[in-house]
Amino acid sequence: MTDSSRLLASLAEHVGAAHVLVNAPDLAPYLAETRGLRRGHALAVVRPADTAEVAGVVRTCAEAGVPVVAQGGNTGHVGGGLPQGGIVLSLARLNRLRALDPVNASITVEAGMVLADVQAAARDAGMLFPLSLASEGSCRIGGNLSTNAGGTAVLAYGNARDLVLGLEVVLADGRVWNGLKGLRKDNAGYDLKQLFLGSEGTLGLVTAAVLKLHPRPLSRSVVFLGLASAEAALALFVALRAEAGAGLTAFEYVAPFGLEIVLRHRAGARRPLAGRHAAYALVEVSTTRPGEDAGTVLEPMLARAQARGLLEDAVLAASEAQALAFWDLRESLSEVQKAEGASIKHDVSVPLSRLPEFLARATRACEAELPGLRVCAFGHFGDGNIHFNLSQPVGMDRAAFLALWDRFNRIVHDIVLALDGSIAAEHGVGLLKRAELGRTADPVALDLMRTLKAALDPRNILNPGKILPDPTAP
Amino acid sequence: MTDSSRLLASLAEHVGAAHVLVNAPDLAPYLAETRGLRRGHALAVVRPADTAEVAGVVRTCAEAGVPVVAQGGNTGHVGGGLPQGGIVLSLARLNRLRALDPVNASITVEAGMVLADVQAAARDAGMLFPLSLASEGSCRIGGNLSTNAGGTAVLAYGNARDLVLGLEVVLADGRVWNGLKGLRKDNAGYDLKQLFLGSEGTLGLVTAAVLKLHPRPLSRSVVFLGLASAEAALALFVALRAEAGAGLTAFEYVAPFGLEIVLRHRAGARRPLAGRHAAYALVEVSTTRPGEDAGTVLEPMLARAQARGLLEDAVLAASEAQALAFWDLRESLSEVQKAEGASIKHDVSVPLSRLPEFLARATRACEAELPGLRVCAFGHFGDGNIHFNLSQPVGMDRAAFLALWDRFNRIVHDIVLALDGSIAAEHGVGLLKRAELGRTADPVALDLMRTLKAALDPRNILNPGKILPDPTAP
Repeated sequence: MTDSSRLLASLAEHVGAAHVLVNAPDLAPYLAETRGLRRGHALAVVRPADTAEVAGVVRTCAEAGVPVVAQGGNTGHVGGGLPQGGIVLSLARLNRLRALDPVNASITVEAGMVLADVQAAARDAGMLFPLSLASEGSCRIGGNLSTNAGGTAVLAYGNARDLVLGLEVVLADGRVWNGLKGLRKDNAGYDLKQLFLGSEGTLGLVTAAVLKLHPRPLSRSVVFLGLASAEAALALFVALRAEAGAGLTAFEYVAPFGLEIVLRHRAGARRPLAGRHAAYALVEVSTTRPGEDAGTVLEPMLARAQARGLLEDAVLAASEAQALAFWDLRESLSEVQKAEGASIKHDVSVPLSRLPEFLARATRACEAELPGLRVCAFGHFGDGNIHFNLSQPVGMDRAAFLALWDRFNRIVHDIVLALDGSIAAEHGVGLLKRAELGRTADPVALDLMRTLKAALDPRNILNPGKILPDPTAP
Repeated sequence: MTDSSRLLASLAEHVGAAHVLVNAPDLAPYLAETRGLRRGHALAVVRPADTAEVAGVVRTCAEAGVPVVAQGGNTGHVGGGLPQGGIVLSLARLNRLRALDPVNASITVEAGMVLADVQAAARDAGMLFPLSLASEGSCRIGGNLSTNAGGTAVLAYGNARDLVLGLEVVLADGRVWNGLKGLRKDNAGYDLKQLFLGSEGTLGLVTAAVLKLHPRPLSRSVVFLGLASAEAALALFVALRAEAGAGLTAFEYVAPFGLEIVLRHRAGARRPLAGRHAAYALVEVSTTRPGEDAGTVLEPMLARAQARGLLEDAVLAASEAQALAFWDLRESLSEVQKAEGASIKHDVSVPLSRLPEFLARATRACEAELPGLRVCAFGHFGDGNIHFNLSQPVGMDRAAFLALWDRFNRIVHDIVLALDGSIAAEHGVGLLKRAELGRTADPVALDLMRTLKAALDPRNILNPGKILPDPTAP
């Protein structure tokens, strides 16, 4: 027996032969990534059924010195789950709801549960699990937690990290840390769960979690706004944040080119406002108060904003169907971009006070670099997080445009860093931004990250080659 | 020159001789702890003026192998800042407000700023820094962050950890990590700040922080409630949480003995309700909406709760003065306990759904252990956090009662752990709960904590002997 057939036999003992995939067609979906920019390779895909099996698989691989790349729904945007050898450990079969405690407002789920199923379980209990993002029908909660996912509900409820009370984690040597507590306050030693949230499977594998639930809003009001500028959008945001407080559940931004291409390509999309504006925003206000219509909360706030000249036009959704239609305009933006050719994407954040400056400087710099380039900027304005995407000039060769990826990354990221922002706001680092992290991060921070990696995964078994830049790179 | 005089001379070079304190009277306040249960000892107290001086002091001590114990306001409850040799590094002179960005809703402060001063700076900008606790007039923000402090505003705004956007930290070897970003979303590598929040100065010294500000409520309504039981308190809490959502800014619990001793010892305290009840709660609802009176929000919710039989009696504060008086009843509880003799204290949390069971079991077990013992249970009910304090039997010898400390700890903590709770909810571990942490923590968790400590502070310079139990203890 070769080393690798010995390994596969040993893995089959842990999970059953049917759950060790080795044929190319079976492996294919695990070796692809969402953007189709790269392709991975792996010895096998292993699909354990429970935490003990995950632990057995990791222990076996650790002993053999074989890398383990965890995958949930494989929906990431930065190649964080892409294997470069070793095995793929799929958490998809760990998809049980372990417990739901409505009084404690907590839910205990396994890593492989699809995000939409977690949302549905909360809804069935009359509560809200707020994490919400485009891939919620196929992404899995373990991946959401391992990447500290963001999405459209961060403004009021925080990132994935903020929704976690406890974790169960398989460590690099196959031991299991059971930190599945459902507590709002716990200072009994270091807060170990923080290590594994957002570390993209490089320090440990999340197998289960206790998540926070929130009271479920009974009414929401959604408005689509036409604005004179990004500066006006920011002034409006500041006004609404002050008045609506935690009831302000979304403030999303769409630049004119974004709205234009949604209307061009999205089936059934209708122009929400009669006129043209320099900037658009989708705003949502929610309320948990019985008998209250969120529209009656939002309308006077908008009226005051209008009196101050902060908005040019506004249309309030008259029904839940219209609210969904407004949200669809925003949420189909990533998808419709494909119809406009190749895109070079940036997922960045800056302090809110620097948002207009970022948009202006980055747009100007990119347009100057390549005439005809079309900036498609949109995103979670209220979180300071912009998807600063670049659509290729009409008629340009696709590959020639994509060859400029690194050059545009550098232009955009240098502006982000000059404004004290982040080059990886909600999608993580993975493979795609690893070199940029190496180029731009504080050397002390990088050294601390390497220290953590070496301490928790001394043999470099867990998702090697992700996040941390190659120390030998120039 | 001896080793220690060489060290002191070297420290004086960094901070100036006037800021190296060595005389017993100068040292005394730094060697005491709030409860007067223990006394520390130190070579010197060093008072650097800025981050560079802190770094120089730590580097010098690291090279000499001398422990460094950081202190802010020295107001902790668990001896976390008590030196056991080495030097005390006081952050008190690092007390500058570095920046306030009202649009980004963030404030950048140095570690030595008094919490009340941070609150005031936020208020002056029309915003709220919500962290609030009894010692806010003297505790310092660096200590609050290093202990992940809790307090009375956790229900709506989270613990200290949740209020931090960025940190500046001096590491164990004297290097400075500058992580002072003011971003709501940042996944550019591991979230390093989490390591230092709540680690009580054992992994690094916080020298500055970027903190989140919140919209400032324009109106609040405070009600004092008489309830039939802890079960009724929980049902009421669940109802108000669902209806008021993030507008529910406090839900505090007071057992009858607590109210009784406040009324007995607190100057000016007046009985809020005519009758006697088995449990009391202080509830606060706040609103940021212009022109809205929070009382009009809270009253119908209370009426519905009363109709469901969830409360026996309620008195709404008719003025801000009365609201403050109600809060004073709750906040003077720790203080008045001193007038009833010695106390053995527990700062514990359990899942909310287990709170009534915890209160009943722990009360029964403690009263059975020592007839005449008086349970003084109160605290942050909505966070699942109870200060389960035990007042000595009337007439018992103080020292004889305090000699039972470990025995009562074990009784209470074993019940907490059986209910999946924490033995250190908001005050931390420090020196006082180190042995209990060792007795009760999961060995894998302890091993992970030791791994972190060894990785970040391999020479064990930073606050040695705190949090982590002695590995050689039985």
